Amino acid sequence: MKQYEFGIVGLGVMGRNLLLNIADHGYAVAGLDLDQGKVDALANEATEKQDVKGTTSDKEFVEMLKTPRAILLLVPAGKPVDSAIAGLVPLLAEGDIIIDGGNSYFPDTDRRIKELDEEGLHFFGMGISGGEKGARFGPSMMPGGDQDAYKRLQPIFESVAAKVNGEPCVTYLGSGSAGNYVKMVHNGIEYGIMQLISEVYDIMKRGLGFDDTKLQQTFAQWNETELQSFLIEITGIVLNKKDDETGRPLINIVSDVARAKGTGKWTSQNAMDLQAPIPVIDAAVAMRDLSKYKEERVEASKKLTWDGSEGSIDLDHIKHGYYFAMLTIYAQGLEQLAIADKAYNYGLNLADIAKIWRGGCIIRATCLEDFMQAYVKNPSLPNIMLDNKIGKDLLNRQEAIRAVVKYAAGKGIPASAFMSALSYFDAYRSEKLPTNLVQAQRDYFGAHTYERTDKQGTFHTQWD
Amino acid sequence: MKQYEFGIVGLGVMGRNLLLNIADHGYAVAGLDLDQGKVDALANEATEKQDVKGTTSDKEFVEMLKTPRAILLLVPAGKPVDSAIAGLVPLLAEGDIIIDGGNSYFPDTDRRIKELDEEGLHFFGMGISGGEKGARFGPSMMPGGDQDAYKRLQPIFESVAAKVNGEPCVTYLGSGSAGNYVKMVHNGIEYGIMQLISEVYDIMKRGLGFDDTKLQQTFAQWNETELQSFLIEITGIVLNKKDDETGRPLINIVSDVARAKGTGKWTSQNAMDLQAPIPVIDAAVAMRDLSKYKEERVEASKKLTWDGSEGSIDLDHIKHGYYFAMLTIYAQGLEQLAIADKAYNYGLNLADIAKIWRGGCIIRATCLEDFMQAYVKNPSLPNIMLDNKIGKDLLNRQEAIRAVVKYAAGKGIPASAFMSALSYFDAYRSEKLPTNLVQAQRDYFGAHTYERTDKQGTFHTQWD
Repeated sequence: MKQYEFGIVGLGVMGRNLLLNIADHGYAVAGLDLDQGKVDALANEATEKQDVKGTTSDKEFVEMLKTPRAILLLVPAGKPVDSAIAGLVPLLAEGDIIIDGGNSYFPDTDRRIKELDEEGLHFFGMGISGGEKGARFGPSMMPGGDQDAYKRLQPIFESVAAKVNGEPCVTYLGSGSAGNYVKMVHNGIEYGIMQLISEVYDIMKRGLGFDDTKLQQTFAQWNETELQSFLIEITGIVLNKKDDETGRPLINIVSDVARAKGTGKWTSQNAMDLQAPIPVIDAAVAMRDLSKYKEERVEASKKLTWDGSEGSIDLDHIKHGYYFAMLTIYAQGLEQLAIADKAYNYGLNLADIAKIWRGGCIIRATCLEDFMQAYVKNPSLPNIMLDNKIGKDLLNRQEAIRAVVKYAAGKGIPASAFMSALSYFDAYRSEKLPTNLVQAQRDYFGAHTYERTDKQGTFHTQWD
Repeated sequence: MKQYEFGIVGLGVMGRNLLLNIADHGYAVAGLDLDQGKVDALANEATEKQDVKGTTSDKEFVEMLKTPRAILLLVPAGKPVDSAIAGLVPLLAEGDIIIDGGNSYFPDTDRRIKELDEEGLHFFGMGISGGEKGARFGPSMMPGGDQDAYKRLQPIFESVAAKVNGEPCVTYLGSGSAGNYVKMVHNGIEYGIMQLISEVYDIMKRGLGFDDTKLQQTFAQWNETELQSFLIEITGIVLNKKDDETGRPLINIVSDVARAKGTGKWTSQNAMDLQAPIPVIDAAVAMRDLSKYKEERVEASKKLTWDGSEGSIDLDHIKHGYYFAMLTIYAQGLEQLAIADKAYNYGLNLADIAKIWRGGCIIRATCLEDFMQAYVKNPSLPNIMLDNKIGKDLLNRQEAIRAVVKYAAGKGIPASAFMSALSYFDAYRSEKLPTNLVQAQRDYFGAHTYERTDKQGTFHTQWD
């Protein structure tokens, strides 16, 4: 009987695209889905050169696979993952590998690793970024789990991943739930940058009065500079799209009530558990939430008015202010990874992470090369803002972001990502923060004690 | 045998103070602590007029209490609460009441209510604010649980609570974990205001060059105005304190590495679960966390410099900017309560909550009267910023907070509470937010769909 190199469970668009991508690279790939329609879709989409086969039978699926089996789940996070695992386990043999390719909550992955280890099976959590297109033509993949077992997966993943300068955007990231954790923070950074871009758009539109054409052209131009990145690129494309029905720019018809699937929220919530400050990502989560309260906003827009007619700003200030704020968002996410690495003993290599984020994923950008270099130079760098090159990039753009913040404050245009980026930067570069007052207040009213700058120990004072 | 009206478990400073406070009001109170030293301390601190008795025996303690028994736990949150409950339950009778007076995580309270209900016992979660002094002379108390059982507790709690215009700062708040939830958000607001005050202090010190005397005098003066509040008051007192050893202002010797016990973090994490935007409280949590990274900050202070010598601001702008930002912090916390009330069916009354926060607690302030009035006028007010009086207070101070934000941005002084307060306000009063771009981007790369402003439904577009 014919043996397939790799199996995929869940033949939705993502699953089919990744399966066809793997098949493109000469691997025989089997697919499982309970929905015959999706199995048929796979058969229709595959070319004759592609050695693929779909089935609705889990038994047939498992028997088709070469041992040790490598099976990638592309099903929604949560219970569907547990159900898929439960269905497969009785059919598998010792040493087989299940990879969860969804955005699973990382503690779930740690639990599953432990449960499957007891069955003699390997379990990987692997974040995949790049959307449907990335899955088809080269995603960025973030696998974590057992390092030895990864050898079985490595050649396949390296062949299908996006490439930057010939190097694949996938590597073994670390033990346990490292892959899901890194992908979670990737998504947190994504939330931050998307919020920031939306503020740029707002400032140019409401502030500078740019029309749709000029907005679109500006983002397209920016993508030819050091701002080059997937999210800047697609902003230009999105702004260019006309509505099929009305012929109007589609962006103006899209509702401003933003949705979220939870990975940004998890990033912020976990950062708080680890005491890792990521205020721009927090602000991005809060602003998506605030967008929900449309009725209140409409009422408030009538009552809480401001005449922001004065004030001006150069477009270059917005551009450099964007770059500055964007750097702080990556800085926050990457520092969270460094802190999480210590807390969870993942064994992360931040240079590797910056490297595989250079291509394929949603937060890919030219600047990732700088981050990789910074970590290559100093693998224990706590925050990329302390790197000389990146520090200089920030210093050169300080005036710009300060100008953006002042302009937005004067105009009354909300700029929470810009503002929290700047206040983060100014707090981070403060040898002395005023939090000594917070400590003194806590000791005053709650006898929580405080530490002193002139000697060791904790102290309590009767302040009045 | 003599019967005591009320029992307290845990005779630390808080427990002893609250016990003596209850005894002051003519109630016979029994105390339990396994530490004989604390039992002795209670005996020493009590006057002859106070009818109190301490013991190290849980059996003796329970037998001393009048049925249905009312027992308040003042032990650290977490396992100690469960241990205390487990020790008491076998000794109690149906209808007895246990009240947890600590800062317990609200889902723990819901679990305990359910567990004790199966034993025929009532369980209350009750936040207590006011610190050691409040416990002794009048705290603000936030009880939640079974409404009928509360009748047994009401006269005692009303007699010992702080009073404002003769009205006690305690009332039945709602079912289940309502008491702990309200106290959690109280603490989140506390975090926000403390961060804000520390920024005021920083701006006056680093920016305006105020010396210690002028700093202290300014806060003392502000406390005579509409800014009057416990936290402004104690800031003046704290800044006035000289170190016993060196004779220098103690505040300058207190370390700026801030600690936290978790209630602010819980507030932010839960707000994200409920999609309730509270960005200033989030920023306060992040800034306490950032304060921990002292070594990085010292290094960054040398590398990431800014010549912020220009710029000026009036002290009145800082004062009114403070009031503005403070209003937004209460607005965020109170809106979170309104949202949580719907999610958890607590049956909260926001006018009552504003009322009991007017006295005794850490966030008591003159402005709470306004909030109470706003909710009395409109019990379903979603956000106090939409109240006419409070809206006017904001409008009158918009120029001030915009001036503070511009000044801080120019000077390079971190002002995350001020900045997130302003961006929250400007986002809240935006009929159209630029989050339509976020939705379009999400649909572009992840096929997450979007909604339209011109018709119902969800839509997906091939954007390129």
